[in-house]
Amino acid sequence: MININKFTEKLDKLNFQNMYNNDFILTWEKTRDELDAVFTVADALRHLREENVSTRIFDSGLGISLFRDNSTRTRFSFTSACNLLGLEVQDLDEGKSQIAHGETVRETANMISFMADVVGIRDDMYIGKGNKYMRNFSDYVKQGNEDGILEQKPALVNLQCDIDHPTQTMADTLHLINHFGGVENLKGKKVAMTWAYSPSYGKPLSVPQGIIGLMTRFGMDVVLAHPEGYEVMSDVEKVAAKNAAESGGTFTKTNSMEEAFKGADIVYPKSWAPFVAMEKRTNLYGNGDTEGIAKLENELLEHNKQHMDWQCTEEMMKLTKDEKALYLHCLPADITGVSCDVGEVDGSVFDRYRIPLYKQASYKPYIIASMILLSKVKNPQELFHALIKRNLNRKFR
Amino acid sequence: MININKFTEKLDKLNFQNMYNNDFILTWEKTRDELDAVFTVADALRHLREENVSTRIFDSGLGISLFRDNSTRTRFSFTSACNLLGLEVQDLDEGKSQIAHGETVRETANMISFMADVVGIRDDMYIGKGNKYMRNFSDYVKQGNEDGILEQKPALVNLQCDIDHPTQTMADTLHLINHFGGVENLKGKKVAMTWAYSPSYGKPLSVPQGIIGLMTRFGMDVVLAHPEGYEVMSDVEKVAAKNAAESGGTFTKTNSMEEAFKGADIVYPKSWAPFVAMEKRTNLYGNGDTEGIAKLENELLEHNKQHMDWQCTEEMMKLTKDEKALYLHCLPADITGVSCDVGEVDGSVFDRYRIPLYKQASYKPYIIASMILLSKVKNPQELFHALIKRNLNRKFR
Amino acid sequence: MININKFTEKLDKLNFQNMYNNDFILTWEKTRDELDAVFTVADALRHLREENVSTRIFDSGLGISLFRDNSTRTRFSFTSACNLLGLEVQDLDEGKSQIAHGETVRETANMISFMADVVGIRDDMYIGKGNKYMRNFSDYVKQGNEDGILEQKPALVNLQCDIDHPTQTMADTLHLINHFGGVENLKGKKVAMTWAYSPSYGKPLSVPQGIIGLMTRFGMDVVLAHPEGYEVMSDVEKVAAKNAAESGGTFTKTNSMEEAFKGADIVYPKSWAPFVAMEKRTNLYGNGDTEGIAKLENELLEHNKQHMDWQCTEEMMKLTKDEKALYLHCLPADITGVSCDVGEVDGSVFDRYRIPLYKQASYKPYIIASMILLSKVKNPQELFHALIKRNLNRKFR
Repeated sequence: MININKFTEKLDKLNFQNMYNNDFILTWEKTRDELDAVFTVADALRHLREENVSTRIFDSGLGISLFRDNSTRTRFSFTSACNLLGLEVQDLDEGKSQIAHGETVRETANMISFMADVVGIRDDMYIGKGNKYMRNFSDYVKQGNEDGILEQKPALVNLQCDIDHPTQTMADTLHLINHFGGVENLKGKKVAMTWAYSPSYGKPLSVPQGIIGLMTRFGMDVVLAHPEGYEVMSDVEKVAAKNAAESGGTFTKTNSMEEAFKGADIVYPKSWAPFVAMEKRTNLYGNGDTEGIAKLENELLEHNKQHMDWQCTEEMMKLTKDEKALYLHCLPADITGVSCDVGEVDGSVFDRYRIPLYKQASYKPYIIASMILLSKVKNPQELFHALIKRNLNRKFR
Repeated sequence: MININKFTEKLDKLNFQNMYNNDFILTWEKTRDELDAVFTVADALRHLREENVSTRIFDSGLGISLFRDNSTRTRFSFTSACNLLGLEVQDLDEGKSQIAHGETVRETANMISFMADVVGIRDDMYIGKGNKYMRNFSDYVKQGNEDGILEQKPALVNLQCDIDHPTQTMADTLHLINHFGGVENLKGKKVAMTWAYSPSYGKPLSVPQGIIGLMTRFGMDVVLAHPEGYEVMSDVEKVAAKNAAESGGTFTKTNSMEEAFKGADIVYPKSWAPFVAMEKRTNLYGNGDTEGIAKLENELLEHNKQHMDWQCTEEMMKLTKDEKALYLHCLPADITGVSCDVGEVDGSVFDRYRIPLYKQASYKPYIIASMILLSKVKNPQELFHALIKRNLNRKFR
Repeated sequence: MININKFTEKLDKLNFQNMYNNDFILTWEKTRDELDAVFTVADALRHLREENVSTRIFDSGLGISLFRDNSTRTRFSFTSACNLLGLEVQDLDEGKSQIAHGETVRETANMISFMADVVGIRDDMYIGKGNKYMRNFSDYVKQGNEDGILEQKPALVNLQCDIDHPTQTMADTLHLINHFGGVENLKGKKVAMTWAYSPSYGKPLSVPQGIIGLMTRFGMDVVLAHPEGYEVMSDVEKVAAKNAAESGGTFTKTNSMEEAFKGADIVYPKSWAPFVAMEKRTNLYGNGDTEGIAKLENELLEHNKQHMDWQCTEEMMKLTKDEKALYLHCLPADITGVSCDVGEVDGSVFDRYRIPLYKQASYKPYIIASMILLSKVKNPQELFHALIKRNLNRKFR
């Protein structure tokens, strides 16, 4: 029943030694082998759980979650991942405690990490802040470990920053891998990462940026489509272009949703705020200019309204490969006639893809657990064989 | 020391196969055998814990708590139950996340259940809503499991809805069973479920409804007493009448507290809001009519005041069987001279029954754990024998 | 590698039987042997964790945290300690639930303790309240256990009250023990517990009181220094004097920071509010006199400003033994030029002592775990040997 060899044999061929005792912050800082290791370990963990094999590798230990934003899905995914490996989650709730940037980051990072094996951070709201915060945090706990303060250096997992959303995009990609029957089958597939209209404002850029920064690694033809003015970070576009060149795929941009959808194997229509606007907003927040923020948000909602034709309708879907591209979304979506009057996607389209959409989401806990495991375990192949040998059921019987 | 056979032999005689992979929503949806199985497993779990035998059957796994209401006692009972079986509790806090009825229930239900073995829901405030919400939730995770999204279907435990409060009333009944020395000794006992005066407004109906819907299963003489205008759901009264007919007990109603107390073996005096008022309030909430709500609440407090004579006083207690009926309350009680000027019960009565009252409450964690176990384990008799054989201490020594 | 004997042999020589099934509320209620047992067990637990030996002694069980105050550090320390021993933390959040003093304490104490092995309470804000609350809580669960309501009596650990802060001061002392190479080396060391200027108001007295009440146990020369008007509880001063007499040390008071620092081996400069003011404030709170509170706070801030010269500067440090006394702080500190314009300590002093400061903090989880263990385990020596024999890794490999 349990076939762990197909996973360990894959891992044997990959070089991922550098992940040990390291963080997962941006996908483009990782090699293809390292990304493949994350996918493989995630699949292995899922297989073991489905076969009722306990993957509890920590008999005690904490997973710290640090969310600077409300979140149900990511919170539950992180808790599930930690629990699967035996770590208890302790929230560092900014309401309950009080943390800030600067000097106090170093102190907080050390104070909460005495028994922390992993820290998951979500900090996506302010351009130029979230990612920087994570790197500071990581430097400080590394230092703390070297100075003999921390017995272990907790692994840092980026649960969404202003630049990337690696646990989301890696889960999205693992969904594609399993949907198309292997990572090698992604080559040549056309994926349309497109902006879509939403009646709400200010959705983060980390998903479109993360998608173009990751899916260009697999030889796919990645198209980024959005109305003029909805540009993402240019640095990430450069990463995407470089990735495409190296992987034998393409990275193109267009201001036409139709063009992006035409012949696409995969579509990912999703609203986001323009990078420049988010940058402006970050500065307004910095200056405490609430009037300026309200004004900016109104402008942006008006701006959005000029692009209400950017919707994933049934007609748009007809433009795609065989009229049935795989529809992706990070959820929750703004569904026309369901959660809003006019939104990102037609109710009928969403409904038809509900099952694959939910499956897409189901990979996230395993992706997070895989990232933790690869940072904490030097030789996962040996570990998996030992887990089989240990023969402990997840559910006792 | 450890005598697990007395529990497994009881279970051998009961038919409860239908509880496996099923929810616990209303007691009257369960057969007598199934209820008896819950009591027996709860007693067995308590015995094992007291004998320091670990009943951790999950090496990892989550118990999700979804409370649409503040709650200390039920929250702690649910956490205790999950922990006893090895599940870590993750709260779905409506403040932290944002869930709603309708389409999003399906999505949330799936998104939080990827690794959830049980979901405990408390949703008792709005007539016609809480129970419906639970059933929707249950349908969606069942569907999610069938569609291959969820590896397992989490068991749903009703931690209080607008209709029933099964974990409370089952704990109350287990207290009676152990107090009177066996479920068979409940036959013929008179229990007075009566309204009592409270200076606060809007206590839910789930306890009186749950009590008349459950205690009529055991051949007891169940009397429901309240002032005119404080009627409970008529559907539940019909259930109670039917139950009584089948079990060889009686179900009667009266508008006299004295009549209910006369010769009672057990009294359960407790305030609640009239069903019709709660229904009206639900509609006012639906329409966002805060003025109407304030007006209604004032009316109801005035209404309550007309029935200040409905108190469980020392004189009232003298009317009961041998002047010493067992006094029950789901806690916290409005105690005259302690937590309020005039309330449900005299301070001296409450004080005399404090120990049995706290014991009554102590059954709830075990009842919840039992409900979870019976949904997750096909053959609990085998499980119990295996646990004895495993010989793992709860507290290592 | 693992040398558990050096810890068990120490324990063999100590008499700490009275700690079993008992609480930890004030350090001066414990014998020297008992304090030494706490240090030794804490060191042993740390050693075992560092050697990857699981110290999970509970297969299930809850640790309840009851914080009447925000707190990151103590919260994380308590969670870490519980997790290290196998207990899952459940917060009794006053926001989520609603607890109060008086009659309801008894009920809440019982209701949350059905499966609680330990309860950690922090209640430091109101003079005359926190410690009393803990003792009430403890009495009620002891009674609940005797009455057959609670299977076990949860151990109560004082996580800070209005009188003492034993987990902090015991961690501080363990830091000194390890820094100076043994508890016997503390004899004759001069420690300056001094007030320091802070631009904020109302820091609790539990640290200075706890320090003079504890460090006088070890034959140290303890000096308490503060400006006139910043007196601590006189009862605790009496305890300190008595301790010093018994241990062969000294306890002196001065209104000169310089005098305290002169030749000190250890300095602990820290702001606090005058006891009399805190008492006044407690009464104002009791009367709901918000205007009076605001007035008092302003007065106190003005008062503080008259003592801005009480800072731990580089010059002050030069007065200490060899100009390099060990600098202690319970963190977070008010650091001049970092977290405030002028505060308790110079940035350069703080920076130079950052590593030892963080190490000081790192002992707290182990101190708490030790206090729990000594209350729950009759023979820790046997336990440690059994843990070695069990040979279970904290991190599986």
